[in-house]
Amino acid sequence: MIVVMRPGATREQVAQVRHVVEEHGLEAFVSEGEERTVIGVVGTDLERVSHLGTLEGVEQVVRITQPYKLASIEHHPERTRVRVGEVSVGNGGGLVVMAGPCAVESRDQMLQTAHAVRREGARILRGGAFKPRSSPYSFQGMGMPALELLAEARAETGLPVVSEVVDASQVEAFDEHVDLLQVGARNMHNFVLLRAVGQSSKPVLLKRGLSATIDEWLLAAEYVLSSGNPNVILCERGIRTFETATRNTLDLSAVPVLRRQTHLPIVVDPSHGTGQRSLVGPMALAGSVCTEGSGVVKLRSPPNATPIMFEAAARK
Amino acid sequence: MIVVMRPGATREQVAQVRHVVEEHGLEAFVSEGEERTVIGVVGTDLERVSHLGTLEGVEQVVRITQPYKLASIEHHPERTRVRVGEVSVGNGGGLVVMAGPCAVESRDQMLQTAHAVRREGARILRGGAFKPRSSPYSFQGMGMPALELLAEARAETGLPVVSEVVDASQVEAFDEHVDLLQVGARNMHNFVLLRAVGQSSKPVLLKRGLSATIDEWLLAAEYVLSSGNPNVILCERGIRTFETATRNTLDLSAVPVLRRQTHLPIVVDPSHGTGQRSLVGPMALAGSVCTEGSGVVKLRSPPNATPIMFEAAARK
Amino acid sequence: MIVVMRPGATREQVAQVRHVVEEHGLEAFVSEGEERTVIGVVGTDLERVSHLGTLEGVEQVVRITQPYKLASIEHHPERTRVRVGEVSVGNGGGLVVMAGPCAVESRDQMLQTAHAVRREGARILRGGAFKPRSSPYSFQGMGMPALELLAEARAETGLPVVSEVVDASQVEAFDEHVDLLQVGARNMHNFVLLRAVGQSSKPVLLKRGLSATIDEWLLAAEYVLSSGNPNVILCERGIRTFETATRNTLDLSAVPVLRRQTHLPIVVDPSHGTGQRSLVGPMALAGSVCTEGSGVVKLRSPPNATPIMFEAAARK
Amino acid sequence: MIVVMRPGATREQVAQVRHVVEEHGLEAFVSEGEERTVIGVVGTDLERVSHLGTLEGVEQVVRITQPYKLASIEHHPERTRVRVGEVSVGNGGGLVVMAGPCAVESRDQMLQTAHAVRREGARILRGGAFKPRSSPYSFQGMGMPALELLAEARAETGLPVVSEVVDASQVEAFDEHVDLLQVGARNMHNFVLLRAVGQSSKPVLLKRGLSATIDEWLLAAEYVLSSGNPNVILCERGIRTFETATRNTLDLSAVPVLRRQTHLPIVVDPSHGTGQRSLVGPMALAGSVCTEGSGVVKLRSPPNATPIMFEAAARK
Repeated sequence: MIVVMRPGATREQVAQVRHVVEEHGLEAFVSEGEERTVIGVVGTDLERVSHLGTLEGVEQVVRITQPYKLASIEHHPERTRVRVGEVSVGNGGGLVVMAGPCAVESRDQMLQTAHAVRREGARILRGGAFKPRSSPYSFQGMGMPALELLAEARAETGLPVVSEVVDASQVEAFDEHVDLLQVGARNMHNFVLLRAVGQSSKPVLLKRGLSATIDEWLLAAEYVLSSGNPNVILCERGIRTFETATRNTLDLSAVPVLRRQTHLPIVVDPSHGTGQRSLVGPMALAGSVCTEGSGVVKLRSPPNATPIMFEAAARK
Repeated sequence: MIVVMRPGATREQVAQVRHVVEEHGLEAFVSEGEERTVIGVVGTDLERVSHLGTLEGVEQVVRITQPYKLASIEHHPERTRVRVGEVSVGNGGGLVVMAGPCAVESRDQMLQTAHAVRREGARILRGGAFKPRSSPYSFQGMGMPALELLAEARAETGLPVVSEVVDASQVEAFDEHVDLLQVGARNMHNFVLLRAVGQSSKPVLLKRGLSATIDEWLLAAEYVLSSGNPNVILCERGIRTFETATRNTLDLSAVPVLRRQTHLPIVVDPSHGTGQRSLVGPMALAGSVCTEGSGVVKLRSPPNATPIMFEAAARK
Repeated sequence: MIVVMRPGATREQVAQVRHVVEEHGLEAFVSEGEERTVIGVVGTDLERVSHLGTLEGVEQVVRITQPYKLASIEHHPERTRVRVGEVSVGNGGGLVVMAGPCAVESRDQMLQTAHAVRREGARILRGGAFKPRSSPYSFQGMGMPALELLAEARAETGLPVVSEVVDASQVEAFDEHVDLLQVGARNMHNFVLLRAVGQSSKPVLLKRGLSATIDEWLLAAEYVLSSGNPNVILCERGIRTFETATRNTLDLSAVPVLRRQTHLPIVVDPSHGTGQRSLVGPMALAGSVCTEGSGVVKLRSPPNATPIMFEAAARK
Repeated sequence: MIVVMRPGATREQVAQVRHVVEEHGLEAFVSEGEERTVIGVVGTDLERVSHLGTLEGVEQVVRITQPYKLASIEHHPERTRVRVGEVSVGNGGGLVVMAGPCAVESRDQMLQTAHAVRREGARILRGGAFKPRSSPYSFQGMGMPALELLAEARAETGLPVVSEVVDASQVEAFDEHVDLLQVGARNMHNFVLLRAVGQSSKPVLLKRGLSATIDEWLLAAEYVLSSGNPNVILCERGIRTFETATRNTLDLSAVPVLRRQTHLPIVVDPSHGTGQRSLVGPMALAGSVCTEGSGVVKLRSPPNATPIMFEAAARK
């Protein structure tokens, strides 16, 4: 961390910064330039002094080390391969497509869709049991009974299943029925939940928060990793911007950025990322190549059915 | 809800929209214009057909009714006054300032600050027991013991206390020690937590999510209200934008927008909203007047202490 | 355009909306619903009544027709192919790569780069003569002499050239030396310039503004088209968001959205879109496939030279 | 400027950065840390090496000095007072309100409004002659004849007038008829226009671009100042964010940030900033106090007239 003082900063102000840094068990290296004094801060928990910017005479506080470790490719140069049931995701596992309905609505719908998903070549089945909905008056998902339908669909098709867990208290039940625990975008900053899935034996699909920076997202992964679970898959699903032509703005450049910073596998979700059926195909294709993978499975919805939303796993 | 069809939409496509609408128990009114056909959709759970935009021939889906009811000023024309301990917030309660340290760090720090806060005129004391931190390696707060220190500070000063609850499992303990349950920005979309505080007997301070629209924020309030708790205070604390000169962009125009849409009291948090000590004063002042309230209490930190971050409650 | 009145709106308020609409030469169709009155507005210049939302009793104003015509695929179902020198861009012209230095800096640099660009397979040469720079103290480009160097590079390599024009007064000179006139992101809303290039005989490369919606971008194209120049190529170059890991957020989903709305060819600029050399390759690839084109030319910079920034034209 | 190398950066990569820095006439100071090497870069035109981030081994490039000089309060500690006709704006000039119609539409409308504006206490009259409109089919303003109507309104009321200039070629005509030249948000990055108004003898009202950071805005002011015109007033008019409840998000915290960084006077435009009549009053009030000014003039539109949009000048 580098603390840049204002041009006219006094000796007392510089001393005060040094004092606060040392008081929190960190080291300070003061370097007086012609125009400005710059103070380097070294130590392990730099967030303790994140308020340095509020001290008198301080102009700017700049972080220069990545605040995450276990997620970093520097500390773990080999790319991680995560096993979801029998399916390998990441590090040469080839392209994997995850598909299925947004919400589990009935036994018929789930089984019919599961067979369609499998027939079309997807390798992981998704289905929502609990739906985090903006409105309390909307359908919130079938809940626990949906987990049993998912388990049945898995038994019939052999596809491992992924579903979203919305509270720490549910992790145990999910562990039993589901192969991949999804933490949704709205819960990316729910640290209690992150720690809970970090203690699960099942891998975790961690979606990016609506307005999370890539660094914050990797820190959320760090919560899971540091709680003991090394199997995290990151899922880009669009960020919130001023553009309203699409539901979110799918940030595909996050994929190569992540590949440079982390060893964790990356998945792209063109369905939630765009919110429009006609954009899912082109963006799935784009997502698959920008990760240096190749090919993509096209999914069509079965006739007379609710449109299938799908998530394409796109990584090398 | 209005469904606008594309110019060349076929009769079959229009019929399909009507079919889907009616299948979900809603009514459809088709109006054929010269260039386009427009379909009005009426009913209670419009989110069930939120996927209408994915049907063939549909250009745009426009919502025209507010999706929240209990929070709406249309359904509750009298402004709500919330009691926090002995303090009235909203609807003529006058200006109320909430102040205190970001995190409870020790008994000395807490009591010393509490007295300073009271001496300067603030009427509600804040202090974080659980700190949602981006990094798992950062100080996460003292946890439950902090609640007891808060209760002690309350006993000494007579100020009611507010603190952030981060998981549904904590609500019971908070109910006992705290006068106002804060739901933080990162948990605004944690619906399990919203329902849990909705069953509390204590009032709730609901912070706006980092990238939540005003409508989404009011829907989050609706979760609390519809779970049985009528005492919700909304807290504007800045939104995430491209500007990096401030930590967030304090959206003060949200205050008059909210006053037009809801009966709930509104609080402005200039500390988290700007992230810079020197901006807290001017923005607290601005926040207090744009709500048609008047005056503001200036807070200074006690000498030799960690800077006090404060939250100014600014409403009529 | 649909005007939605508030629930309690009076007859007088509805009459006032109708009055304002008719006063501006437009037609109003009032439809009284159970809860709300909705007023349809029909006519050619709906922006004249864009202030309807400010009238008493009005809750929301919703536009339902696209405000652009000449750029719309509805009015021009065949996709446009633009000729840049001898090169065809769009509508089956195959993948075209544009490459070259950010700024023309010297004769040697320009010619050497031009040959490298050609050798690597790019088909249009780019080079900045005028550089719009945030700081007045930065290098602003060589200006007019650069146009002659570009013309020389074209003569030597046979590649048509594109360069940015920054003021209406320069259009004539650019017409003479350049094959494709670029309007930069910062000038996308410079309507005087848009009209000026609209009167040029050369095609126009119109970059998206930093915070322009897709609709605003198409309206900017409409300025050029309606001034008499049918040859417009749209260039996605990233939008401004909260994410700082990349210079901009390349909005690749804009490509399929545009293909649904307009007949104009689309180009993706992964260099300015990401601002980082290592991201140019993956995002060029992604850009090329999401347009249903195929293949991409890899560009390397010549040894010991300033890094070449390149723009990949990715369309079918 | 500080260049932070990646952890494993080689000596050659460090040497290459140093080489590029020195090649551009700047100085490099290398400091080898335990984990990372950091290189300080010193000189006048740091933008010449803004591509350092693209070199191999570089992790991050951090700017630590403000890129503007003439606009900076460091170089000009006394706050500037700008004279607009007989009216003093800034540095103790008290609160000044600018008001008037969005566009000049007719002689009657202009004169009637001018008298109303004056009667209500505003001290500067505004009126648009050229309207930058998103659509080429919308009313673009009366053009030059409007300048004469503005001059007539000034003669009748004694109020100085402000109007937007949209192209460098118009500056001379504006100089003659108008007291304050407005550069609109869409032209904040039109550097040719900035230089042209920089050569005018009249003061300049510089609006913030829709997605301009505060630093970019001050650099735009620097273009005007460095071209010889010391009389620049900055106008905050809202930025583009994800929130759609208001047309823009009025960034009032920009006001105290600016007051800390620049000596130039600051104006707040609550009309364009919010786009809604009912929000203009509260936000004008908020804008006036966050600048440590006091009081605000309330404006009502004359009966039966187009709503008056007004801009409140709020500074000390």
